Amino acid sequence: MDKQQLIDCHHRIKPFIHNTPVLTSRLIDTMMGCSLYFKCENFQRMGAFKMRGAANAIMQLSEAQKQNGVVTHSSGNFAQALSLAAQSLGVKAYIVMPNSSPQVKINAVKGYGGIVMECEPTLEAREQASKQIEEEKGATFIHPSNDDDVILGQGTACMELLEVYPDLDYVVTPVGGGGLVAGTALAVHYFGKSCKTIGAEPFEVDDAYRSLQSGHIETNASINTIADGLKTQLGDRNFPIIQQHVEQIIRVTEEEIVAAMRLLWERLKIVCEPSSAVAFAAVLKEKNQFTDKKIGIIISGGNVDLNHLPFNKN
Amino acid sequence: MDKQQLIDCHHRIKPFIHNTPVLTSRLIDTMMGCSLYFKCENFQRMGAFKMRGAANAIMQLSEAQKQNGVVTHSSGNFAQALSLAAQSLGVKAYIVMPNSSPQVKINAVKGYGGIVMECEPTLEAREQASKQIEEEKGATFIHPSNDDDVILGQGTACMELLEVYPDLDYVVTPVGGGGLVAGTALAVHYFGKSCKTIGAEPFEVDDAYRSLQSGHIETNASINTIADGLKTQLGDRNFPIIQQHVEQIIRVTEEEIVAAMRLLWERLKIVCEPSSAVAFAAVLKEKNQFTDKKIGIIISGGNVDLNHLPFNKN
Repeated sequence: MDKQQLIDCHHRIKPFIHNTPVLTSRLIDTMMGCSLYFKCENFQRMGAFKMRGAANAIMQLSEAQKQNGVVTHSSGNFAQALSLAAQSLGVKAYIVMPNSSPQVKINAVKGYGGIVMECEPTLEAREQASKQIEEEKGATFIHPSNDDDVILGQGTACMELLEVYPDLDYVVTPVGGGGLVAGTALAVHYFGKSCKTIGAEPFEVDDAYRSLQSGHIETNASINTIADGLKTQLGDRNFPIIQQHVEQIIRVTEEEIVAAMRLLWERLKIVCEPSSAVAFAAVLKEKNQFTDKKIGIIISGGNVDLNHLPFNKN
Repeated sequence: MDKQQLIDCHHRIKPFIHNTPVLTSRLIDTMMGCSLYFKCENFQRMGAFKMRGAANAIMQLSEAQKQNGVVTHSSGNFAQALSLAAQSLGVKAYIVMPNSSPQVKINAVKGYGGIVMECEPTLEAREQASKQIEEEKGATFIHPSNDDDVILGQGTACMELLEVYPDLDYVVTPVGGGGLVAGTALAVHYFGKSCKTIGAEPFEVDDAYRSLQSGHIETNASINTIADGLKTQLGDRNFPIIQQHVEQIIRVTEEEIVAAMRLLWERLKIVCEPSSAVAFAAVLKEKNQFTDKKIGIIISGGNVDLNHLPFNKN
């Protein structure tokens, strides 16, 4: 994927996304001894960067494909993103969700116009249900992270960040399925000066860290993390980009994630997901590495359940 | 207070404040049938608009006055604002706080460099302690809301909002001591096109509503509201401005405040105080009045205790 593809992608999706604000905090900077620039994708439409990739993927379909709609299986932000992007573009979105999904998530997808198809809560059932929709409806399957158009779309958040702060030393993102970190790494490669991309992930799901060490895609034996957006694994489209362009993966504990999340809520005054806090937790943890540097952090999303916050001990 | 004073004030305090972002939400706009522009003073330094007025008031002192420091009595945001503004300007700030204040608030003031002077938790003891510091230290007393320089400072948030969105039909702010609504009303008067200022307050502390009706400053018999920033009453400096320039006061219930606050956290993804939610609650309540209008809302602050959120029912 080249520079021009990123530029074209950004131009294409602009009418359908927010150019989200970048927040800074003198207090956090003083505490850390560096300058932090928080790109707030929690303020993105439907509350996460996933809107970018979803919009781009649908816009790259032929008119015939658009007529038949799109399908994905997800119970998280990509389900909502694909639904809203499809609705904005007048396309049908079939969302395969496990029948164990919380009603609030099903309602959110329906609220954005998605057509929910429930299935048994196994990966096999999901894939089968989604295959069936591809066959019956002629719908195009769109993967949440392992898709070139999705990767390009996710990279546009970092492009916008570098437009405003062109001389960042690092951009740090959380790593889940790898779409965001791969897109960011491409944007940093093409638009940064001497900037490097760093990924952050929980120790509990450190498949990206291990994959970079072993040289092939590793899986997670268990997914016991509060960062529910990061439980997925890398794919063959984004892994080579990550291998080539991501400098380092920093791993953090569950306690470090919650502490970082609390700091973002208390000091930056933003509602963000545990997954978003993972990137900030990484910088907090490796504070010395970042002294006097300019660091962009992608706050990936803000969809949380206010009834179940990790720092609420009444 | 004239237009030029507002312009000079804004120019003066600019290096010490954030020009805070204005957030919008297509989803909320669609739900409401109007266009809302949220001026996010929860992102202001120390987490509230009070930083503006505090900075301006200190900067207007003579060098001799600055040498002797400033004093106020407050346990809320103005205590933190005066402390931080004073610290930024190399001035001492004595903050009289009731000895019943939560330790977290005392620590916040100390964290911003304020010199905390504890007193008994009565208005009489506060005023006496603060008088004593004026006499002993030669410090200048600065009132949180009933002070021309404070009022001008608070008005700069609305100036910035109107710079970006000059054709607003309404600007809505919460009403507590009256500094924010008075400053906003001046900014709307001098910089708005055909814009009007609306105040919002809880039924539980509707002194401003009753004051506008009776024509003199009314007090609250009880102050039983979740909007803890709005328990104070109007003063002789801001009341005449409010009488002249505020179109209307809308009152809301405690339930309406919490519902509005939840919507701001869930949909706008911001951490804001109950007091901030009062302005949005007013627009939600009188939805029909605002159909197809462009409405600015001042989100006044974001200092909340994450351990005690009103919508947390685990």
